[in-house]
Amino acid sequence: MKPIPGACSVRDDRPLPLEFGGEVSPLTIEYESWGRLNREKGNAILICPAFSAHSHARSHDRNGDAGWWEAMIGPGRAFDTDDFFVICSSLLGSGYGTTGPRTLDVATGEPYAGSFPIISIRDIVDAQVRLLDHLGIDQLHGAAGGSMGAMETLELAVRYPNRVRRVLAMSGTDRTRPYTATIRHVGRRAIQLDPAFKKGHYGDRLPGEGLRVAREIGTIFYRSREDFNSRFSCEPVETPSLDGVTFDFQSYLKHMGNKIVGTLDPNAYLRLSLSMDLFNVSRGFENLEDALNRIEAQVFVMGVSQDPLIPIDEQRQLHDALLQAGVSCQWHELSSHYGHDAFLTEFDWLTPRIRKFLGAKNSGVTA
Amino acid sequence: MKPIPGACSVRDDRPLPLEFGGEVSPLTIEYESWGRLNREKGNAILICPAFSAHSHARSHDRNGDAGWWEAMIGPGRAFDTDDFFVICSSLLGSGYGTTGPRTLDVATGEPYAGSFPIISIRDIVDAQVRLLDHLGIDQLHGAAGGSMGAMETLELAVRYPNRVRRVLAMSGTDRTRPYTATIRHVGRRAIQLDPAFKKGHYGDRLPGEGLRVAREIGTIFYRSREDFNSRFSCEPVETPSLDGVTFDFQSYLKHMGNKIVGTLDPNAYLRLSLSMDLFNVSRGFENLEDALNRIEAQVFVMGVSQDPLIPIDEQRQLHDALLQAGVSCQWHELSSHYGHDAFLTEFDWLTPRIRKFLGAKNSGVTA
Repeated sequence: MKPIPGACSVRDDRPLPLEFGGEVSPLTIEYESWGRLNREKGNAILICPAFSAHSHARSHDRNGDAGWWEAMIGPGRAFDTDDFFVICSSLLGSGYGTTGPRTLDVATGEPYAGSFPIISIRDIVDAQVRLLDHLGIDQLHGAAGGSMGAMETLELAVRYPNRVRRVLAMSGTDRTRPYTATIRHVGRRAIQLDPAFKKGHYGDRLPGEGLRVAREIGTIFYRSREDFNSRFSCEPVETPSLDGVTFDFQSYLKHMGNKIVGTLDPNAYLRLSLSMDLFNVSRGFENLEDALNRIEAQVFVMGVSQDPLIPIDEQRQLHDALLQAGVSCQWHELSSHYGHDAFLTEFDWLTPRIRKFLGAKNSGVTA
Repeated sequence: MKPIPGACSVRDDRPLPLEFGGEVSPLTIEYESWGRLNREKGNAILICPAFSAHSHARSHDRNGDAGWWEAMIGPGRAFDTDDFFVICSSLLGSGYGTTGPRTLDVATGEPYAGSFPIISIRDIVDAQVRLLDHLGIDQLHGAAGGSMGAMETLELAVRYPNRVRRVLAMSGTDRTRPYTATIRHVGRRAIQLDPAFKKGHYGDRLPGEGLRVAREIGTIFYRSREDFNSRFSCEPVETPSLDGVTFDFQSYLKHMGNKIVGTLDPNAYLRLSLSMDLFNVSRGFENLEDALNRIEAQVFVMGVSQDPLIPIDEQRQLHDALLQAGVSCQWHELSSHYGHDAFLTEFDWLTPRIRKFLGAKNSGVTA
């Protein structure tokens, strides 16, 4: 929960009503931007973070901390800052500067902690739109995200059809299927199992071990079976034991678990995780076609053949449903052992395709 | 940990040396049997239990508790008790009567608990062979198992080639790949995260919540993605919350988690789980072909197309490796939404195939 360099913050005093009850007021949104907004305010691209990501998608100068999409944003990159004004805001509920469980609840003067409400992808998108209002951006040139970020882009395109002209939905889905939800459910169970969790009222004594186990479970699904089976061995690296490292993959999972502690607040982890399980872009509409039919943007759907979290079939179904609903839509299938996380790593494959879709002017550094 | 009706017990005072260090002494093995051993002692079939199963594969009379393979054992069934003497022993380390963490350690007069050693599939099979020695069975007509049970059958066929004439390895593997091991690893982490675990020295106050979460994780992989997605809904059944039931699959997972508490001892869970991750039938041999080449039995390999725990490709690789090693081998692929657990449910499909492989005399009730 370190302060993020280069971040700006806006405050909106209008209560934000939440899909599943309650409201957030006031709403603070932390965001960062790269490139320049043109006079017509028509060249903005909203980067929609995935679970555990935040506004810091890219550094702001040579010596700055690298962002989570560093290679994708900048002059000549997929999101070309010579052409576009790129914005990224931390998610509602994340606790990275944007209102979340670590924010002081004005009603009590204490952090919300375990009392922070249940939030949905819809609420997260509503907060992002409040930021666009604040910046005077009526219509985005594009919105882009992978995984949870793809859910946000679709929700935006359906609920605010005139606010976005192009949507890049990578490794996403129109609704979370039960099997995918079971995986996040057991991660949440692990956090709540930690005796330090105390129903979310843990103060500064984080339920770190529960958070580590939750992240280890997640990590199994972020890459692919092929990736694990090719990088690791099935032979023990030490005399087998129940509390030490027996297999090399255990060191990797431990490393990934450790990285999340002190980064994503456990109460935020729980709520953002549940928001994905609750995601259904057609909720409140007659059916999926009725929802997708509202979309005015062109949509770029990308899926990874080896994704163990949201299988390629579901992403193809999303593409087919978009076509069925009369949406202008592109289908991109990537074969990558990076699996679900390919949008965070396969820059050479993604960059020319994204640049072309966004209509970037120059040829690009990697295109 | 209720006593199992109809179980017999043998005690072997020879120390059983363990693959990864230490020994068990004395060794008690609990077993059950159905049908009659013929004069030549040549009609015995060893049923090899999967993780969490035990010697009680079938009831002993009409009013008896049903066993875990009730529909597979009996007159006219897959394992026909009119023809065969069917034996099933609880696994070393399981704590179901066979020596395990709840057994009194003669050195201390206290239960082993968290001090019970690490065991391997090899150790488990060594204990099963001790039972065969005790019963005077030199050579089995067959050995059969699913999942972990399949590992046992392969280990038996490789290490004791003259002790078994037919092997049925269903939903198994010749070695656990890293990806499959990650899944069991996070289950073990959940048990150890429970504050009641106390490094295994929990006495009668079980780390039940950790055990439940471990079982929930396992359950996700026992059936198939298709099974979860067709049986459950992605819409919340109640107002979403972090501690109640939001989705219907959560009730199912909770039910499965609850069922394991009081059945499988958590220390046993940890050791049997690790024994599967450590399984590699070719350990100690030059290579896989060198190991499989020792097999004298005919082998029946069965895999399920939708198995998320041990994918069908690995099972096909096992079959191909057996053929390559010159083993007489059959390949059976089943398409079933029951996934990894199909061997526990798809009786109509399995029965005629198993009967034919075993050379059962009559036509069978379901064949």
